[in-house]
Amino acid sequence: MKRGVFISLEGGEGAGKSTNATWLADYLRSQGKTVLVTREPGGTEVAEAIREVLLSPGLPGMNADTELLLMFAARNEHLQSKILPALGQGTWVICDRFTDATYAYQGYGRGISLARIAELEHWVQGNLRPDYVILFDLDVATGMARAQARGRADRFEQEHVAFFERIRVGYQERAQQSPQRYPIINAAQSLEQVRQQLQAVAERIVAEAVT
Amino acid sequence: MKRGVFISLEGGEGAGKSTNATWLADYLRSQGKTVLVTREPGGTEVAEAIREVLLSPGLPGMNADTELLLMFAARNEHLQSKILPALGQGTWVICDRFTDATYAYQGYGRGISLARIAELEHWVQGNLRPDYVILFDLDVATGMARAQARGRADRFEQEHVAFFERIRVGYQERAQQSPQRYPIINAAQSLEQVRQQLQAVAERIVAEAVT
Repeated sequence: MKRGVFISLEGGEGAGKSTNATWLADYLRSQGKTVLVTREPGGTEVAEAIREVLLSPGLPGMNADTELLLMFAARNEHLQSKILPALGQGTWVICDRFTDATYAYQGYGRGISLARIAELEHWVQGNLRPDYVILFDLDVATGMARAQARGRADRFEQEHVAFFERIRVGYQERAQQSPQRYPIINAAQSLEQVRQQLQAVAERIVAEAVT
Repeated sequence: MKRGVFISLEGGEGAGKSTNATWLADYLRSQGKTVLVTREPGGTEVAEAIREVLLSPGLPGMNADTELLLMFAARNEHLQSKILPALGQGTWVICDRFTDATYAYQGYGRGISLARIAELEHWVQGNLRPDYVILFDLDVATGMARAQARGRADRFEQEHVAFFERIRVGYQERAQQSPQRYPIINAAQSLEQVRQQLQAVAERIVAEAVT
């Protein structure tokens, strides 16, 4: 059986990843693919419990390395119990954020060494990387306005604008290193236009999966 | 100011580490040292929350790598917020179990690659290791009988005898690699005799700290 294709969706706050994950899954299903849409912590009990520790606003300032180890712990559980088994059965997996988010938020955002993140990435994932990382790129002001309109304000969203600017730069730099693997969607456009861009990307991915 | 000495106490179930930690601290204080006795998760709120996830008997079988990442996350928090600041102030730190326990329980006990544990150890600790690892060595049957008499039965103690045999061998192998740094206490002896052995070890450590 052919292994499924692993696609992650990335981008800052308010870029529309989550809404478009559903749309992308529907499109891929219309092309005959079996699709799993997931996001960390992925609905596994262990990873949910870890996520609770990470997001708990009551906990005092956590050491940045501790936060990183917890993220990779939740990721490992999600990967081993859900993503890898699905890919192995030929299911396509769409994951709303994956390790690129760690590079962007903890690395570029909080200043943790990218090399240290890479060490944990390799420890947990070996050589496994998403086959495609679709980047929803959006200027920070628009993204924050959209996120605030949704009324979301967890610990990560209480950060300041400069932090989100660094995150955007981080995503863009990673995308530039492997443009074929990191299709970029201009998420500042209308939903209709975003969908058109996303469909073009999806068509290319489906075509490449045949070969 | 002279950095404090970092001592960890290791051994299987019922070997008497915890009881003797208090005695060792009192002895070192009688020699003029400032002493902090601690154990993972070390009373830090974040590490306690991580420990809860680790020990929760309600959670389904956790992936072994996830467990390891969580342990090092709790260890990192304990180290950064409590152990390193104390050592930096010249305080001697006695820690009831540290990374040797991970090698023994997760490595020798559960079969996780020792090399993979070493990678996380280096990621979290750099070159920091306890200055001394005092090993309370005890045959498994005696240790389990003592632990059961105390009525303890968390997830780790529900394991079988062969598991604890592997742990004992693991501790012994590590001690043999650096005998100066790993003093061994024969914990099968009476409490009185164990105290005499421990005092001899403590006297050596205090003497070596002068030079």
